[in-house]
Amino acid sequence: MLAVGKELLIGRTLNTNAHWIGKRLAKMGSMLKEITTVDDDLKEIGVALNQALGRSPDFLIVVGGLGPTPDDMTLKGVAGALGLKLRQSEGALGLIKEHYAKRGLTSIELTPSRLKMARLPSGAQALLNEAGTAPGVRLVSGNTIVFCLPGVPVEMRGIFRRSVEPEVRDKLGRLHRKYITMKLEGVLESILAPMISGQLGRHPGAYIKSHPRGVKEGVSRIELDIAVVGEDRERTISECEEIAGEMKRAVIGGGGRVISAKGLKGGET
Amino acid sequence: MLAVGKELLIGRTLNTNAHWIGKRLAKMGSMLKEITTVDDDLKEIGVALNQALGRSPDFLIVVGGLGPTPDDMTLKGVAGALGLKLRQSEGALGLIKEHYAKRGLTSIELTPSRLKMARLPSGAQALLNEAGTAPGVRLVSGNTIVFCLPGVPVEMRGIFRRSVEPEVRDKLGRLHRKYITMKLEGVLESILAPMISGQLGRHPGAYIKSHPRGVKEGVSRIELDIAVVGEDRERTISECEEIAGEMKRAVIGGGGRVISAKGLKGGET
Repeated sequence: MLAVGKELLIGRTLNTNAHWIGKRLAKMGSMLKEITTVDDDLKEIGVALNQALGRSPDFLIVVGGLGPTPDDMTLKGVAGALGLKLRQSEGALGLIKEHYAKRGLTSIELTPSRLKMARLPSGAQALLNEAGTAPGVRLVSGNTIVFCLPGVPVEMRGIFRRSVEPEVRDKLGRLHRKYITMKLEGVLESILAPMISGQLGRHPGAYIKSHPRGVKEGVSRIELDIAVVGEDRERTISECEEIAGEMKRAVIGGGGRVISAKGLKGGET
Repeated sequence: MLAVGKELLIGRTLNTNAHWIGKRLAKMGSMLKEITTVDDDLKEIGVALNQALGRSPDFLIVVGGLGPTPDDMTLKGVAGALGLKLRQSEGALGLIKEHYAKRGLTSIELTPSRLKMARLPSGAQALLNEAGTAPGVRLVSGNTIVFCLPGVPVEMRGIFRRSVEPEVRDKLGRLHRKYITMKLEGVLESILAPMISGQLGRHPGAYIKSHPRGVKEGVSRIELDIAVVGEDRERTISECEEIAGEMKRAVIGGGGRVISAKGLKGGET
């Protein structure tokens, strides 16, 4: 994922888009491989885009910088980096007119700022944005499908659900994920470490990670996440529960307590 | 900034560290140039680190992956990418022993998991972590000072304030920033766009950016940020206020309203 916007670099805006997309993909059994955030700058966007495409991901999701203002330069940056020209897209223009019409602005003037949102890299497809003006964009580069989505969360989410998710699901096939998170007390992370290593040795594909949550009244608190992804639903669930059960016994054996275990009994989360 | 941790890629944890560091640096008149987030993976860490160092930044702040668990592999990744060996640091070991001693754990066994936190890239310096166990790390690569900080926010912030900020301030010299944010209503972003272009033409160093905040009861809402950074405090403030005043007049002239303007009258923010 490539996030574009100075507001993300200067602590003006928290990157909740990356968080939302990451969670959404993880639930589908996929995963964001890398998140890069750059400034509204043609060169920065181009360099980051080419670095990302150099790793030949299945998908590259670019978020932010599709609007009408001069600092919205994502599509120009993408076009430049891919050696494409920006061209007025009839599809995009239709979507923009439709959007204004829905808001009762049928006679709105198509100023250069508004027409700018209809200028896509040549060959790109405009994607319906039900919550805002600037359409999303889909284009293909090598083995990678590139999606450009607006940075406004409600717009990004709508286009993601409607146009990105179906393609990701197609690519993934049927994957299941089981995820368990446990709250632990009275065990140090340095004591958990060898237990985790042991489990990872027996379950090499699993994800087991501890998050220290500080010390309260002299008792250290930790959250422990366990996740397994697999094609067979029952085996995925039982492997994850097996790891959770063994970690639970090890923690108790080591003098700690398991305060809660969300997702521990059946049910994919 | 390089953030390390699968939890950031799967939507488990929101990257508040990047937000906090970005805001902190912006207030000092500096700026994060790029934020990259990668998985707990030696190769991913190494590639991202070398890409970042290839841009010769003054500082590279690496956050996360310094703890005792097997997925904490940032220092190994950094050492590998820079062609350095991991070595037990007497400085780091002293800080770790001190930390346990403060918690009354004087006779705690220095297991491999605990000793791991004292193994730094050769030549690196250990930085006091007042809120946790794993020390921060400082090392120099080419023209870049690399800081590695723990991912636990309270620990990261403490080391950042104590050890990173003074060096950044030294490098920056005396810079002032004036920042004004205005809430606007009843003006479309596509109408603001040419006004912003005009102001940027007259104030090429300024930062002027609009953030659409949706439509409420048929009225579009926008937040407009204006920032100026400069060496002369009075001139920085007056330039920022001048832009804000002109944008305000333009918005009102265009039929919109200015609901609030934070920071508009004096005072650096």
